[in-house]
Amino acid sequence: MDPIRIAVVGLGKIARDQHLPAIAGNAAFSLAATVSPHDPGREGVAHFASLGDLLYGGPAIDAVALCTPPQVRYDLAALALKRGVHVFLEKPPGATLSEVVALRERADKVGVTLFAAWHSRFAAGVAPARAWLAERTIQKVSIVWREDVRVWHPGQAWIWEPGGLGVFDPGINALSILTHILPRPVFLEDAALSIPENRAAPIAAELRFRDTAGADIHMDLDWRQTGPQSWNITVETDAGTLKLSSGGAVLTLPGGTEHNEDLEYPGLYSRFANLIRGGRSDVDIDPLRLVADAFLRGRRESVEPFND
Amino acid sequence: MDPIRIAVVGLGKIARDQHLPAIAGNAAFSLAATVSPHDPGREGVAHFASLGDLLYGGPAIDAVALCTPPQVRYDLAALALKRGVHVFLEKPPGATLSEVVALRERADKVGVTLFAAWHSRFAAGVAPARAWLAERTIQKVSIVWREDVRVWHPGQAWIWEPGGLGVFDPGINALSILTHILPRPVFLEDAALSIPENRAAPIAAELRFRDTAGADIHMDLDWRQTGPQSWNITVETDAGTLKLSSGGAVLTLPGGTEHNEDLEYPGLYSRFANLIRGGRSDVDIDPLRLVADAFLRGRRESVEPFND
Repeated sequence: MDPIRIAVVGLGKIARDQHLPAIAGNAAFSLAATVSPHDPGREGVAHFASLGDLLYGGPAIDAVALCTPPQVRYDLAALALKRGVHVFLEKPPGATLSEVVALRERADKVGVTLFAAWHSRFAAGVAPARAWLAERTIQKVSIVWREDVRVWHPGQAWIWEPGGLGVFDPGINALSILTHILPRPVFLEDAALSIPENRAAPIAAELRFRDTAGADIHMDLDWRQTGPQSWNITVETDAGTLKLSSGGAVLTLPGGTEHNEDLEYPGLYSRFANLIRGGRSDVDIDPLRLVADAFLRGRRESVEPFND
Repeated sequence: MDPIRIAVVGLGKIARDQHLPAIAGNAAFSLAATVSPHDPGREGVAHFASLGDLLYGGPAIDAVALCTPPQVRYDLAALALKRGVHVFLEKPPGATLSEVVALRERADKVGVTLFAAWHSRFAAGVAPARAWLAERTIQKVSIVWREDVRVWHPGQAWIWEPGGLGVFDPGINALSILTHILPRPVFLEDAALSIPENRAAPIAAELRFRDTAGADIHMDLDWRQTGPQSWNITVETDAGTLKLSSGGAVLTLPGGTEHNEDLEYPGLYSRFANLIRGGRSDVDIDPLRLVADAFLRGRRESVEPFND
């Protein structure tokens, strides 16, 4: 089988740290081009300033990975789908729910693969956590997701702009795990968003969700955490407590702890290849819908200015 | 066929002005009870302080119409569905998207009718507008929805609370028409929300949407309009201009203007009866999703305080 010729669009931190190595490590793909108006590209790989230049004047490609900020992703995805090119959407899959729904309908109509990637779902502990919880009664869930934005998003102005999600940019990773491992649907009850005076997006948030059987779910998001970082989900059940830590990489069950190798992006690219070979799409908007609900329903409080 | 025994839950302005008259005027329904902790009820009709009191100690009912503020509607709807009672949800169908999706899944599972009502879709001009636009190329859309909140929502504090939508409470009526009459999906490009300093929800908003063929859609919402009120949608097409005015009641096409009787709530109850008799649900969340997108993506500006 010929490798899938893929182009990476947007060469920011996530593309350099994760996408390019994962593509290089997967024989199902060959890197055919890169696209960025800012970056000169990689030696030996065709490079274009825009996706239009690539699609209308570059080498033939089968797929694109869109690693740009979410605010500009719809037009890029729509253009790729129009040319029959499969699309991998970094998370969050768009700046709004409606644009992702529109893309999903479009992909179904033209028979092209659209993949809304949630990398945290591929963390090592997540699949076994889901399997273990499937048979349990969920009593209570606590999510603590506290990190230092200066370390993880240095100088990323777009993340503070409308559509950039603020602290929900990491928080949506926790929600992508939550909605994947819990056996019942979850909905928002209450949210308090802390917005720096000089920014449009929250730097911290406290949220309460419930599942449809009534289990309480508490979520604590904070981007002001210096020192040790926390990415933990604790689920109390009728059979004891499950804990996912290190963003889902480490799973602790009543019987002990499992440490496994981190293979999030390799997992995503294996999945993308399978979707393309199978002629299917995978576009789950549930995590983004919960974030939109927090913006819709949440109370806002103004907090001290944030400067990089 | 026996009439559907229905209870009206929440006896505020919309229940008194619209629901009770529409139920009285439709032979498919009989009003079996009312529920309100505040209102003494109606002479000759069983009355309860809570839905639980009715469902566990009152006369048998087949359906409920939930006319409470959206913030408390999920629990009421879940309780009714649990008892096998069909549910009519006033608009907006919930305070969050996720709770409505959870209710829809639940209703499908238990085989009970759930109806998310969008009354403006039953305005006289809307069905012919939809039919006329189905064959047209849409070039541009302009929505102007300007009304006086003091006239239409006197003293309704809940509407200004988180989850209460503010000016999107009427604005969602326009969106329910828009998403119904346009032949292609619509998504949000940009939004500016004007929030009074002393309130949580917007008093005005300016929005830009696009359809998937690229047509520009502009929306102007304002709750500070005294004097003449505006509820107009203008659609420019390759075959001339369509205009819906008076909230959808009046349709103007290139050939002339049609005035028809306002039958929004009678239309809703006919539809609800048909859904129940047919064993089906109708839960379209598109209008609420566009509002959530505006809260998610919109810029906010603080404007002068609003006092009733």
